[in-house]
Amino acid sequence: MNRADATAESAKGTGPLSGILVVDLTHVLNGPFGTMMLADLGARVIKVEPPGGGDDTRTYGPFLNDASLYFASVNRGKESVVLNLKDDGDRTIFLNMVRRADVVAENFRPGVMARLGFSYAELSKVNPRLIYASSSGFGQTGPLANFPAYDTIVQAMSGIMSMTGFPDGPPTRVGTSLSDLLGGLNLFAGITTALYAREKTGRGTHVDISMFDATLAFLEQGTMEYAATGHALGRIGNRHPFLAPFDLYECADGHVAICCGNDHLFAALCSAIGRAEMASDARFQANESRVKHVAALKVELEAALKLQPAAYWLKIIHEAGVPIGPLLDVAQALAQPQVAARAMLVEAGGIKMTGMPIKLAGYADAAARPPAPALDQHGARLREEFSR
Amino acid sequence: MNRADATAESAKGTGPLSGILVVDLTHVLNGPFGTMMLADLGARVIKVEPPGGGDDTRTYGPFLNDASLYFASVNRGKESVVLNLKDDGDRTIFLNMVRRADVVAENFRPGVMARLGFSYAELSKVNPRLIYASSSGFGQTGPLANFPAYDTIVQAMSGIMSMTGFPDGPPTRVGTSLSDLLGGLNLFAGITTALYAREKTGRGTHVDISMFDATLAFLEQGTMEYAATGHALGRIGNRHPFLAPFDLYECADGHVAICCGNDHLFAALCSAIGRAEMASDARFQANESRVKHVAALKVELEAALKLQPAAYWLKIIHEAGVPIGPLLDVAQALAQPQVAARAMLVEAGGIKMTGMPIKLAGYADAAARPPAPALDQHGARLREEFSR
Repeated sequence: MNRADATAESAKGTGPLSGILVVDLTHVLNGPFGTMMLADLGARVIKVEPPGGGDDTRTYGPFLNDASLYFASVNRGKESVVLNLKDDGDRTIFLNMVRRADVVAENFRPGVMARLGFSYAELSKVNPRLIYASSSGFGQTGPLANFPAYDTIVQAMSGIMSMTGFPDGPPTRVGTSLSDLLGGLNLFAGITTALYAREKTGRGTHVDISMFDATLAFLEQGTMEYAATGHALGRIGNRHPFLAPFDLYECADGHVAICCGNDHLFAALCSAIGRAEMASDARFQANESRVKHVAALKVELEAALKLQPAAYWLKIIHEAGVPIGPLLDVAQALAQPQVAARAMLVEAGGIKMTGMPIKLAGYADAAARPPAPALDQHGARLREEFSR
Repeated sequence: MNRADATAESAKGTGPLSGILVVDLTHVLNGPFGTMMLADLGARVIKVEPPGGGDDTRTYGPFLNDASLYFASVNRGKESVVLNLKDDGDRTIFLNMVRRADVVAENFRPGVMARLGFSYAELSKVNPRLIYASSSGFGQTGPLANFPAYDTIVQAMSGIMSMTGFPDGPPTRVGTSLSDLLGGLNLFAGITTALYAREKTGRGTHVDISMFDATLAFLEQGTMEYAATGHALGRIGNRHPFLAPFDLYECADGHVAICCGNDHLFAALCSAIGRAEMASDARFQANESRVKHVAALKVELEAALKLQPAAYWLKIIHEAGVPIGPLLDVAQALAQPQVAARAMLVEAGGIKMTGMPIKLAGYADAAARPPAPALDQHGARLREEFSR
């Protein structure tokens, strides 16, 4: 056992999910993100990769010292074995894994697992305690079950792009693969729910997660507007629909976010920026009226804010008790001391990546994590272990 | 017991979390979204609200028949009792609840629970099996623990706004309260993890979730670019950084999302739109070169696509085997038959809202859900039940 393996093994002994065995057929982003959360919390995750190069993302940039950061960032702490699921010998090894597994996870297009002979009905016969966890673009059921799903397509079809951006601008993609990642996070949560339920029932279940469902569940004001009026909510940029000032504002050298939930905070803000008289301006006295005159309000506030840099206003306005924060790029965001204090930038195999947001007292939340595996790195040992 | 209560009670008996008792001190959006997921899966969730009107969101619009859709959408299936946590009698009732609870959930600013005498250390003495679940803007620890946190501020400070939008446009807020909702979803997942772990250890734990951590964990390409170069990823609009065509495209009457992951799909797309010659254009032959000439590629593709409406291209290009989907507003998105087929638009108390994205075989996933409670609706019964 090499040093990385030893580190991985020692982490497994202590997490809230230690003792859980996951056979992980997921690939690309959505499924692997969810199973990485299982590994982070102590589950043993065996990544089963196809012959011919393994998970496609091993070839995706950006690269650091020949390692795909894409692959590394969602596969830390897993073991890797290459199995050809159409080969009889490899199928036997896979089924031996299934027999002893707590979880099988997959994110193929619906129907692929059944064609391999590995449907939920079939695998739950092999192991009735098995939690069979599927993640897909639109789910295992319904008229769109087989519709091609990429994050951009799911974002477009869920309505989230239509709500993101400015009234005079185009619909806007969330700048990260939101639907993929939400699918993965729900997959993780569905598995932990099923693990708990199994303790009561003794039986496994089929967890059926869809990127589309997961995104719909996040539409918030969009769904509320539809429920109230039957109509779609348009794009309103960065501001809050019902509160003002509650937006990004431009200073001399960048933006700040200011959030005034009530008239008292607004008055404090006006004093802090040297514009106390604004608080008694008829247009701005009450929140309802400020929302009506939100464009004029922004012009007035920015006229003052643009006279000084963001750092100046962050201090002055914060000290006045008004909620304010800086607009940061990712490099600035990750350099904040809060990130290190919460182990939210970890290192795995020499690569920096974001950490585990679920913090549980009594369990380690290490800033050093076991690396993502090389292709078939644990193949020989795993083939031996699951030869019977 | 009225009819709504009866419906709520019957749902409790059958979910994967049935038998779990949650004392829910959360308010506004982030915590309530997480505890609603517990209720959706069969937990009994008692919402403890403060005197003087209860959860602030009861007064938030939009309204339907005097009901706040905001409140209704994240509190379905819960019971409500008003308790004054500074009053001795009410504190006794609360502590009786804690003694019998599996979970206490709260999303106050860090320090508030301790000032009430209800820190994790104190409540875990009352009930060592208690899972004490906290959600906050920046977490219970670190230099920003007490920093004021609203969704817009957390989005700004996490870097997600800097990555969303167009290169020539401003940083853009995700058009939903992403950081609030991600905090809530992680709170749910942390609680289910802790419930499973408790089955093994017999002990509860403190779940410490932060909206900021939860958002950082979703930065994806942003973190990869930082790990590779130390620099921040800029805004690139709706396109994919490494694949083309992979973007929103304008048709005669609206947008479609087209995702070509390889040269073969690109050639199929060119034929489908009557521009077969584009596939042999030197600028467009290979993906790497298409990414370099991505602006020119978009101009050429849209010149063809703008000749017909989106519905025409959705049929033609889909039939050519190229991944394509429509850009929909929220009303269109929620009207898709897939939404009803997966019970992702449910009705609770006469109000439409999005459903539960975690689907587990063997457990009901009803399209009719118990409503959110009126303020103190279950107060008399709960005060009696927990009087000792």
